[in-house]
Amino acid sequence: MSRSRPATNPAKTIPTRSRLLESARDLFWEKGYAATGMAELLSRAQANSGSFYHFFDSKEALLLAVLDGYLEGLDSAVIRPALARHRDPIERVFAILGGYRDRLLSTECTYGCPIGRLALEVDPEVLPAHQRIAANFRSWTGAIRKCLEQARDRFPAHFDLDALAVFVLSTMEGGVMQSRSCRNIKPFDQSVAQLRQYFVLITGRTTKNKIEPIRKGAGN
Amino acid sequence: MSRSRPATNPAKTIPTRSRLLESARDLFWEKGYAATGMAELLSRAQANSGSFYHFFDSKEALLLAVLDGYLEGLDSAVIRPALARHRDPIERVFAILGGYRDRLLSTECTYGCPIGRLALEVDPEVLPAHQRIAANFRSWTGAIRKCLEQARDRFPAHFDLDALAVFVLSTMEGGVMQSRSCRNIKPFDQSVAQLRQYFVLITGRTTKNKIEPIRKGAGN
Repeated sequence: MSRSRPATNPAKTIPTRSRLLESARDLFWEKGYAATGMAELLSRAQANSGSFYHFFDSKEALLLAVLDGYLEGLDSAVIRPALARHRDPIERVFAILGGYRDRLLSTECTYGCPIGRLALEVDPEVLPAHQRIAANFRSWTGAIRKCLEQARDRFPAHFDLDALAVFVLSTMEGGVMQSRSCRNIKPFDQSVAQLRQYFVLITGRTTKNKIEPIRKGAGN
Repeated sequence: MSRSRPATNPAKTIPTRSRLLESARDLFWEKGYAATGMAELLSRAQANSGSFYHFFDSKEALLLAVLDGYLEGLDSAVIRPALARHRDPIERVFAILGGYRDRLLSTECTYGCPIGRLALEVDPEVLPAHQRIAANFRSWTGAIRKCLEQARDRFPAHFDLDALAVFVLSTMEGGVMQSRSCRNIKPFDQSVAQLRQYFVLITGRTTKNKIEPIRKGAGN
């Protein structure tokens, strides 16, 4: 998911629909939805206009399919790799955030969350797109919520874990945005450190004491 | 700064450079930087290509001027109205956030922060733009930092107020983004409520007890 990877060069063996989807995903991310022209998309996907309209009614239909693809890929691309790094549920939350830190570092802080970008770009009137963007956010916060639920006994009774999961996403999105603008990891790290401090204060103990890194090769 | 206001209809009395700037600001916000074409910009600004190049070397130069404009307007558009609502420095921080809540509510949650949008849209290679986006973020967090400094005695010794100011911005940007996607104020409110809870835990008391709303007509 790194922005620095080479431009898509689809092999002829990749089905046309997949080539269109992958090219659209990359272009919407690099250039934006509105700025991506049909000619550029078809050229990158090595497809013609006829095949495009065979698979998609419109550019908007393609956007919806791209957003569905992100939703389907969230678990394998973002959640599972982070969960595999820790057993402790709160450390797992910070491992998911750590994944974004890695994305920033590996792109010299040019990384921008593709869903966040589309959330701010796509016209609010394109409701089906925003419904899918919101579904992506809900799926992300749902994964965080599950971790928090597993640590329920460390939080005060009736603590609003739904709101906390949303707050974790705000921290990620706001931190990524600021780090991208100054090309420096510092604002992201500052935001996550403050969130960590909040967790410490809510749970009344340093979660760091609970770290149990998973050994390589160990099951999850 | 509301997205729902009518399209710019510049009177002939507004100087050409200002018309170009205002039209660009609106279009970059509504459609994005890349998707804004020169023809559309000139048409909205009621200007011709010759006047454009008289004032700006390129579309990128116009973007830089738009970002400088946001920076210059931050205090009057965002900070001062919020500071005028409270005397208590921590309440002032939440009043700045409350301004964004108002922007969301008055646009049926279609509001998106124009700086945040450009932070995620503009190509990372356009360094002068990102330097100005970062300067906007720094100015915003600088205003928050000033409020926090005024409440310094309520924070633990050596508490990292710089990081807290950055965290406040992350909360705003992430909350706005999520509320825009689901067209509902809830994620913004949840994020701000969690931040409020964090302030309560750091300062060891409910800041609400300190509220001293400024009476209408009272000096600031």
